Amino acid sequence: MLDKFKAHIKENLPQLLHSKLLIACSGGLDSVLLAHLSKALHLDFALVHCNYKLRGEESEGDEQFVTTLAKSLAVPLYIKRFDTKIIQENASGSLQMIARDLRYTFFEELCTEHQFQFILTGHHANDSLETFLINFARGTGLEGLLGVPTINLNIIRPLLPFTRKELLSFANAHALSWREDSSNKSDKYKRNTIRNNIVPILEGLHPNFDTNFRQTLSHLNGSAKLLEDYALLLRNNLFIQRKGHIQIEIAELQKLMPLKDYLYLLFKPYQFTQWKDLEALLYAQSGKFITSKTHMLVKDRTTLILTEKERKAPSDHYSIPTHISLLTYPIALVFESVDQIGKKSDSIAYLDKDLLKYPLVLRKWQKGDYFYPFGMKGSKKLSKFFKDEKMDVLEKEQQWLLCSGEDIVWVVGKRIDDRYKVKDTTTEILKVILN
Amino acid sequence: MLDKFKAHIKENLPQLLHSKLLIACSGGLDSVLLAHLSKALHLDFALVHCNYKLRGEESEGDEQFVTTLAKSLAVPLYIKRFDTKIIQENASGSLQMIARDLRYTFFEELCTEHQFQFILTGHHANDSLETFLINFARGTGLEGLLGVPTINLNIIRPLLPFTRKELLSFANAHALSWREDSSNKSDKYKRNTIRNNIVPILEGLHPNFDTNFRQTLSHLNGSAKLLEDYALLLRNNLFIQRKGHIQIEIAELQKLMPLKDYLYLLFKPYQFTQWKDLEALLYAQSGKFITSKTHMLVKDRTTLILTEKERKAPSDHYSIPTHISLLTYPIALVFESVDQIGKKSDSIAYLDKDLLKYPLVLRKWQKGDYFYPFGMKGSKKLSKFFKDEKMDVLEKEQQWLLCSGEDIVWVVGKRIDDRYKVKDTTTEILKVILN
Repeated sequence: MLDKFKAHIKENLPQLLHSKLLIACSGGLDSVLLAHLSKALHLDFALVHCNYKLRGEESEGDEQFVTTLAKSLAVPLYIKRFDTKIIQENASGSLQMIARDLRYTFFEELCTEHQFQFILTGHHANDSLETFLINFARGTGLEGLLGVPTINLNIIRPLLPFTRKELLSFANAHALSWREDSSNKSDKYKRNTIRNNIVPILEGLHPNFDTNFRQTLSHLNGSAKLLEDYALLLRNNLFIQRKGHIQIEIAELQKLMPLKDYLYLLFKPYQFTQWKDLEALLYAQSGKFITSKTHMLVKDRTTLILTEKERKAPSDHYSIPTHISLLTYPIALVFESVDQIGKKSDSIAYLDKDLLKYPLVLRKWQKGDYFYPFGMKGSKKLSKFFKDEKMDVLEKEQQWLLCSGEDIVWVVGKRIDDRYKVKDTTTEILKVILN
Repeated sequence: MLDKFKAHIKENLPQLLHSKLLIACSGGLDSVLLAHLSKALHLDFALVHCNYKLRGEESEGDEQFVTTLAKSLAVPLYIKRFDTKIIQENASGSLQMIARDLRYTFFEELCTEHQFQFILTGHHANDSLETFLINFARGTGLEGLLGVPTINLNIIRPLLPFTRKELLSFANAHALSWREDSSNKSDKYKRNTIRNNIVPILEGLHPNFDTNFRQTLSHLNGSAKLLEDYALLLRNNLFIQRKGHIQIEIAELQKLMPLKDYLYLLFKPYQFTQWKDLEALLYAQSGKFITSKTHMLVKDRTTLILTEKERKAPSDHYSIPTHISLLTYPIALVFESVDQIGKKSDSIAYLDKDLLKYPLVLRKWQKGDYFYPFGMKGSKKLSKFFKDEKMDVLEKEQQWLLCSGEDIVWVVGKRIDDRYKVKDTTTEILKVILN
């Protein structure tokens, strides 16, 4: 399996060979094996372990195990202990969701601070299969049947092509040890039932069940991608950008059959969930509306009006330390000091480094934002700039701003600030590349 | 369950209440129950049974059972006995496929001869679930996960909302009897494993598993319909109609990512199956080609050329007897004798009945076909007519012709023949409506 793993990395994930990696390690078979395999490949990695303190001595034992593992592999280890129970009392969502949020927030902090380019997790083929079957038993749509993605932002799962059986036999052959999780939560129970009772029967039905399942996932992911493309095309035609809102002709929506499936496709990214109400809205009185976490949809005679809800002060602020040369999250930016301006493109910014106040900050836009667009003498409200760029609400939501102190120095990928451009007097140039 | 069945028919399948129905009855639980329920609702139906003579005495026993059932229900029964083994020796395909073909050919003959409007089968919710899981174990795409359709042409499955458990408990409560099929073919074996070993576990995972599964099917069918719409839209833009062929710019295809999924979506209806070869064709030398059962795709410099293969004499000939007033297969046509011409539309033909030679025939086009388009003095080649109507290969394939002897009297839904139009001298008018 080591050879197969090596070949898989070389062919499909070569970016891991020359990057600084952070491996999430619970102490269980999957992540422990991932650590051993990464060591065998001489990858440059550290381990990170989260102790949620939910299982008393067992939690402590896991932490101790990972500590010993890191020492034996001679790699750095980052540990964080969470008072999960207390945190849960002040938060909404399941324990699982909360633990996930805590974990990934911590991972991202480490990435920024120590310049890890990718986070690796031990998910393997059976995780995809179990997730498929759990969602299937619960009732789902196409999105629930797509398995675990190999790459999601800066998170990579190098073990996805391997089955649990393969991992186990490798671990046993090399006398590796790991920790068994005794927890017996409801989802865990379902997963175990699927793992122990259903999967072996499915495997017995077809000698190539693993391969078949991989193909199924590939087909379904293809279909999902096609549907996303179709949604983009439809929104381009049907969602008309107006002053501060989007206008949609109800008569145009009504032509789409099956209506409920089209509404789902079109409005899913705006975080609506009440699909029956949305369908009813087409036939409701003017003034009726529904809301999502982020948006509001109002019936106005023959149209629907889609608006963003009042933006709260954005919580997404990412500090970028002085010494960093590569940022991977929330977006991929390369920072270089250069002597002169080279190739120009929207995705490259050349900035007067002397004027920058560190740490730079990456954030989303907020009400009242303005900057001095490159080539202009005066300032311009960002909302006006977005409008002139014909950006829709979603694009605005996704737009990152690179800031120095209070100033926006780069509307990333679009325009730098004129005050920060490279002048004859500039002594040091910072080149920032959007990847 | 009778009330639930009655409500389901009234709400979702009201067309069954006033139609002449043919129930396919193997003698097994599902179809026997369907017959009893249909009787209880006073539906107008006959039974049909196919004896494939594959299981010796058991086959004879099934036939005998259905004969007795028809008598006890006081409904007509049609039986056909097939020498399936002998037929198989001269045919390709699995026994299952052959039996299916034999069965449906016979059913359609009965429909035409005795004016049955719909064929009913006993498929229920568990058939959909088992089909889903069989395809899943075998490896599939979205199409393999859509379950059994409620309506497919003139075939209707009224029991689809009901689970096997519901059927069984109704049958036991009413002391109904049926025949158990002892056959143990490979597919049957897989189906039994899924039925007896996997489904009960899935049901145990979620109290509402049946409802969840119904929702999953509904979502997936919605996604499939959206993809079909998208495919139509793309073909409209990319498939350019030329003289006798379709031309596709390779550069336009190459813009589509993921390419293999787009190629599958676009070319599936032309019956291609060799997807890797099709992808390779984009980069192949001019003159390279691939073929399907019906089509040929040739690389020609910067384009792909899609042509129909030389048409064999079409085997699809459907005789329409004199007395028929409603045809349901292969398309739905209503025949009426009327005194004068009423509302005009492309989907209605008024013909001079005295000139018609019975039985009329419904068939597809063949090379050399011509007719006298309504309003024109001369004859016109059908291929020219199709071209002028801007019909693409698929539309041509799907076009039905209503014929009297050697003459085409109606290019169905498009144009009647001038020689058969209603004149002052006409004494009897045949009105044909395409539904």
